[in-house]
Amino acid sequence: MTRYGTLYGIGVGPGDPDLLTLKAIKTLQKVDVVLAAASTKNEASLALSIARPHLGPQAETLRLNFPMTRDAGVLENAWRENADAVAKILDAGRSAAFLTLGDPLTYSTFGYLARALALRSEAPVAVIPGITSYQAAAAATGRVLVESGESLAVVSGVADEDSLTRVLESAQCAVILKAYKNLPAIRRVLEKLGLGDSSVFVTRLGLEGEEILTGLRNLPEKPSYYSLILVRRS
Amino acid sequence: MTRYGTLYGIGVGPGDPDLLTLKAIKTLQKVDVVLAAASTKNEASLALSIARPHLGPQAETLRLNFPMTRDAGVLENAWRENADAVAKILDAGRSAAFLTLGDPLTYSTFGYLARALALRSEAPVAVIPGITSYQAAAAATGRVLVESGESLAVVSGVADEDSLTRVLESAQCAVILKAYKNLPAIRRVLEKLGLGDSSVFVTRLGLEGEEILTGLRNLPEKPSYYSLILVRRS
Repeated sequence: MTRYGTLYGIGVGPGDPDLLTLKAIKTLQKVDVVLAAASTKNEASLALSIARPHLGPQAETLRLNFPMTRDAGVLENAWRENADAVAKILDAGRSAAFLTLGDPLTYSTFGYLARALALRSEAPVAVIPGITSYQAAAAATGRVLVESGESLAVVSGVADEDSLTRVLESAQCAVILKAYKNLPAIRRVLEKLGLGDSSVFVTRLGLEGEEILTGLRNLPEKPSYYSLILVRRS
Repeated sequence: MTRYGTLYGIGVGPGDPDLLTLKAIKTLQKVDVVLAAASTKNEASLALSIARPHLGPQAETLRLNFPMTRDAGVLENAWRENADAVAKILDAGRSAAFLTLGDPLTYSTFGYLARALALRSEAPVAVIPGITSYQAAAAATGRVLVESGESLAVVSGVADEDSLTRVLESAQCAVILKAYKNLPAIRRVLEKLGLGDSSVFVTRLGLEGEEILTGLRNLPEKPSYYSLILVRRS
């Protein structure tokens, strides 16, 4: 009879190791293996370096390779291989923590891993939430994210211009994450809706190269992957 | 020359004292005064009881009275009085932490207090983010909140039926907070949009009387104030 280990999805928050929850820290101090997703964008080493001060002395770390591609076949293969590796750990009765920046259920790879794992193991899965980048950006700028009867839209900046417009029109407050690739389009939409001047661009918060820019006039030419925009109708 | 104390807005998360961040805990252990907003809904005692295990031995606690009313005059008076009381502490060089359930910049009274305080004191204000109820609900149910190029709408259930419809139509994923007063209207909107069966109603998460109900068929007649709905287009 196998006694399965648990897979924990752990949100390590936006960058400051003190922004992990006590629950995340306690879990990191007792798990057998710490899993960090490696990608060309280097998220892995970032999540791992945030968690590092809290790792127990016994923890092994294992990098999982997640290629940054839109090729569905390549991706599916990668998920399968990673899920196999994780299942092997859990089925041997060892516990593992999968680290994600921010929160494990908010634009994270954790959901994919959990679904792929469910196909190959009956091991239990638990999620420990983490502070998101947009909460940290609001805290750093002192701006209210949303209050009273307002609504908040959280959007990926990779969405196309039409859906971005539709979402931004429907909410009083918004956060545009991944505001790097489509920044010119995002800017056009915000200016068309009269939201340009009141928006705040936040990049590399808590990391080297941090910038907080009010309005959209002096945006960087090549924004970092870790960029977001806070939007609020005045 | 006065040296001002700092006002910290601290998110204590959704209920579990282990879901405070390490930063929140360190701050609670050094501040002079812990402020808890008292209301008829008893949020104050809840936020305070969540934070209680982490309070330093030196901490005084002070209840601020926030009446649960829509009467603008009564509210404004209350803000003024509370801001005066807080300014008095900070201007004497003492630090204070204002506790909020969840996150201080997400549907919290902290923004009002900070604005009222800014009119009467130059004391610095810092915000320490907290895990929101909807992140905890997603974690408890194992449901992804939002992923890939999707967008997430966070809505207050007190919004009217039309704006609720508009917001829910524009996003792939949504969270309806404060799903208690207008629950029949919320349900009508979700069913009209074909989202009823896939929605999950979560009430009193981590508290006595916790319930997680899939679909909208067996909702309580008199839902608790601490109720929310997770919505996801399949």
